[in-house]
Amino acid sequence: MKIPQVKGTRDYYPAQMAVRNWIVDGWKRVSLRNGFEEYDGPIFERLEMYQIKSGDEIVDQLFSLQDRGGRNLAIRPEITPTLARMVNQQINSLPRPIKWFSVPRLCRAERPQKGRLREFFQWNIDIIGLDDPRADAEVIFTTVDYLRGIGLGPEDVRVRMSSRRLLAAVLMQIGIGEGDLSRLYALLDKRGKLPAETFETLLGEQVPDTKMAGKIDEFMGLENVSEIGDMFGRDGELGEAFDELAEVHRLLKEDMGVGEYCEFDPSIVRGLAYYTGVVFEVHAQGGELRAICGGGRYDNLLSDFGGPATPAAGMGMGDCVLEVLLREKRLLDGQLPGHKLDYFVACVDDVYRDAAFKLTMEIRSAGLSANFSYKAAKLGKQLKMASDQNAQRCVIIGDEFKEEKLAVKDMHSGQQDEVGYDAFVAGLGGESSQ
Amino acid sequence: MKIPQVKGTRDYYPAQMAVRNWIVDGWKRVSLRNGFEEYDGPIFERLEMYQIKSGDEIVDQLFSLQDRGGRNLAIRPEITPTLARMVNQQINSLPRPIKWFSVPRLCRAERPQKGRLREFFQWNIDIIGLDDPRADAEVIFTTVDYLRGIGLGPEDVRVRMSSRRLLAAVLMQIGIGEGDLSRLYALLDKRGKLPAETFETLLGEQVPDTKMAGKIDEFMGLENVSEIGDMFGRDGELGEAFDELAEVHRLLKEDMGVGEYCEFDPSIVRGLAYYTGVVFEVHAQGGELRAICGGGRYDNLLSDFGGPATPAAGMGMGDCVLEVLLREKRLLDGQLPGHKLDYFVACVDDVYRDAAFKLTMEIRSAGLSANFSYKAAKLGKQLKMASDQNAQRCVIIGDEFKEEKLAVKDMHSGQQDEVGYDAFVAGLGGESSQ
Repeated sequence: MKIPQVKGTRDYYPAQMAVRNWIVDGWKRVSLRNGFEEYDGPIFERLEMYQIKSGDEIVDQLFSLQDRGGRNLAIRPEITPTLARMVNQQINSLPRPIKWFSVPRLCRAERPQKGRLREFFQWNIDIIGLDDPRADAEVIFTTVDYLRGIGLGPEDVRVRMSSRRLLAAVLMQIGIGEGDLSRLYALLDKRGKLPAETFETLLGEQVPDTKMAGKIDEFMGLENVSEIGDMFGRDGELGEAFDELAEVHRLLKEDMGVGEYCEFDPSIVRGLAYYTGVVFEVHAQGGELRAICGGGRYDNLLSDFGGPATPAAGMGMGDCVLEVLLREKRLLDGQLPGHKLDYFVACVDDVYRDAAFKLTMEIRSAGLSANFSYKAAKLGKQLKMASDQNAQRCVIIGDEFKEEKLAVKDMHSGQQDEVGYDAFVAGLGGESSQ
Repeated sequence: MKIPQVKGTRDYYPAQMAVRNWIVDGWKRVSLRNGFEEYDGPIFERLEMYQIKSGDEIVDQLFSLQDRGGRNLAIRPEITPTLARMVNQQINSLPRPIKWFSVPRLCRAERPQKGRLREFFQWNIDIIGLDDPRADAEVIFTTVDYLRGIGLGPEDVRVRMSSRRLLAAVLMQIGIGEGDLSRLYALLDKRGKLPAETFETLLGEQVPDTKMAGKIDEFMGLENVSEIGDMFGRDGELGEAFDELAEVHRLLKEDMGVGEYCEFDPSIVRGLAYYTGVVFEVHAQGGELRAICGGGRYDNLLSDFGGPATPAAGMGMGDCVLEVLLREKRLLDGQLPGHKLDYFVACVDDVYRDAAFKLTMEIRSAGLSANFSYKAAKLGKQLKMASDQNAQRCVIIGDEFKEEKLAVKDMHSGQQDEVGYDAFVAGLGGESSQ
C-alpha cells in the first residue's frame, strides 16, 4: 500500500536536510551574535489567536483541527500571536528590552507555487519594549547581517523601507478618512503585484476622487525621500513620521555600515493592519521573486492580545524564497558544510573485521565519529569508502595487529604511521571534526 | 483579549528553550558520531499512514485535519511511517545500510500526565537493510552512548532486552495459536503497568487454560536467560531466536563495552504488532517512570508500506520522561551550556553612547556577539550588565576615545589594556565563544 506525501510539503532526505540545517543554523548564529535569545511555542494554538492579528480572512489559510474537548485549534501559520501571548503572560517579570528570535515550522493552506509551500520554516526576530529608532534599525541590521554573511551583496538584495505612520499621515492629508485606511493598506500593498490597470481600477473603487487617487499614486511612486517634503510638507505628525524614518535610515548608514543595502520605497506598505511605524521588505534585485522577508514596527500587538501597550519591532523570513534565490545565485552548494568523519576503521583481511567493529565502538565511545564496513570488502574498497565519507584518518588493521599494533593513515597527507593499540585508544578524545 | 495556551503543550521561554536545545543537540551529536544521517518529513501525513502500522486504535490519539481537497490528514504521532514512505520512495537509489536519525516534533491527543504531553520531541534512529545482530546491537549502543554521555550510569538506567521472535516461539510451544499472538502481545506488554490481579484476570480471558497461562507468566518472570533453555529447550526456531538474542547481548558486552547497562528481561514485549526480533526498553532503576525509550527489530515495516521486504531495527526516545529523570537526578542544570557574550561595549559617559552603539555593530559585523546598554547607565551598572550577560571581554569607551583609543577589560582576569580603535577593529574576527 503506497501512500503519497501531502501536497505542498517537503521530504527532507539527508541532502535536503543539510540545506535546511545550514539555513536554520545561520539564522540562529546571527540572532545570537546580535543579542537575541531563542524561544518557541506549540505547533498549534487556539484558532481565535490568529483572527486577532490577521482578521477572519486568515481562517481560509489555516489548517484547523479540534482538541478532544471540541475546542477549535489551528496549526500556526505564523508565530507572532504566540509571541504576544507568551510575552503578555510574563510581561512583569521579563527584563526589557525583550530581544527574542525563533525559527518555527509554520503551515498555511495556500496554493503551492515557486517560493511558496504549505509547510515552511521562518526566522523571526523581535525587539519588544523599546520605543527607539535603534530598535527598528537593529532589526534591519540583523536581517542584513545574515544576508551579507551568506554572500548576498547590495547588488543582489535590497532593503526597501517606508513608514506606515508616514503613509497614514500622507493619506489623511490627501483626504482619506481614518476609518478607510486599513482597507486601503491592503490594496496599496498589492500595487507592485497587480497589473497597473487592475490596480488603478481597484484604487478608483476605493478612492473615487481621481485627484486624490492620483496623489496617492504619485506618493507611492516617489523615488527620493526628500520629495515627500516638497509634496506634502513636514508639519506635525507627517513631519515626525518623516524624521523617524530618516533617523532609522541614518543609523543604518552611518552607525551600522549597511547603508548600501537600504533604500526608501514608499510603495512598501505590508498588507496587515497591525504595523504602526517603519516597515520594510527585502527584495532580490531585478528578479520576479516575492519578498525574501518583511517586518516593521507594531506597537499595538501586545495590547490587542490583552496586554499593556508596548512598543515592538520585528522581522520574519521564510526559507522557501531564500532557498530559491540562493540556488539562482549558485550560493548554496559551495557553502554547505561537508559531512566529516574522524576515523574510518578498515581491515586488510576479514579475520580482523570483528576487531575493526570493536575499535570503531571504542572511537565512538571516546566522543569521535567513526565508521567501518558492514560487509567484507577488499582494503582498496574500504579506503574508497573512507574517502567517500570524508574520513580525516583511516585506521588499518593488518597482520601487525597480532603484535597489538595499528596503521593510522592521514587521509589528507597520505602519511601512514604504526601505532600501538593501547596508545592509540589512550590518545583518543579531544575535538571531533563534526 | 487573553487566550490560554493549548492543554498538554509547552511554551519555550529562553530558559526552557535552552534545555530543549541541549537535549536535541546531544541527540544529534551522538547520532552523527555513530554514523547516522539526519532526515525529516512533513508535520502531517495522510491519516491512513498511521493506521497501517498501528491499527485503528491510533486514530483516537491523532490530531486529525483536512486539506483543502477534503483529504484526511493527521499531525504525526510518530515518524516511523514517514521513514517507511521516504525509504520506499527511493529504495533503489539509497546505499545500504541506510542509517538515519531524526528529532521530530510529534503530537498525540493523549491525557497529559507526568512525562507524557500532547506535543513532544522524539529522537529516532534506524538502521535499514542490514540483517545482522550488529545492527540491533548498534542501535542499543547508540542509545547507551547518549545516556552515558549525559551522566546516566548503569546504576541509573538499564536496557532491558528480549526478543519478539523468542516470545512467539515460546508462546507457540506453550500452545498459543499464531493468530492469537498479536492480541496477546498487547496484553503482555502491560504486565508491569497493571496491578498483578488485573493482569491475571485479563490473561485468563485470553488464555483460559490455567496451566498455559501459568507457563506464560513463568516465562515473563524469568530472571536469567539461561533458564529459557531449561524450561523450553533450544530446538528449531526457539533456539535460533535464543541464539540471536544472546549474540546481540554478547556484542554489547564484549565488543561494545556497554554490558553493564544491558540485561535480559522477558517481560519486555513492546505493544505494537510490528516488531519481529530483538526488542528493548530503557528504564530508570527503581523509579516509577515510564520507559525512557524503546525499540527493536521490525523486518516487515517497509513491505507493509508497499516496499520490498527489508530488514530494519530502530529506537525512539521522547524528551518528556528523559527531562523528568534528568531533573530528578539533578543532571540538568550543571550541563546546560551557559550563554556567552564575546564583548559588552560600555561607556563612561552618555556622550559616548552613540560610539558604543556603533562599535557594537562593528563587532557583530565581524561575526562576534556583542551587546550594549540601550539606556543611559553609570559605568558600574553597565559592567554589572556585562557580567550578567557572561561577557568574556568588556570594551570601555572613555575620554581616551578622543584620541581614538579604547580600554579593553578581560572579564576573567580583570586585566585592562588600552588599545587603538582601528587596531581593535582590525583585530576582530576569529572564533566566537558561542
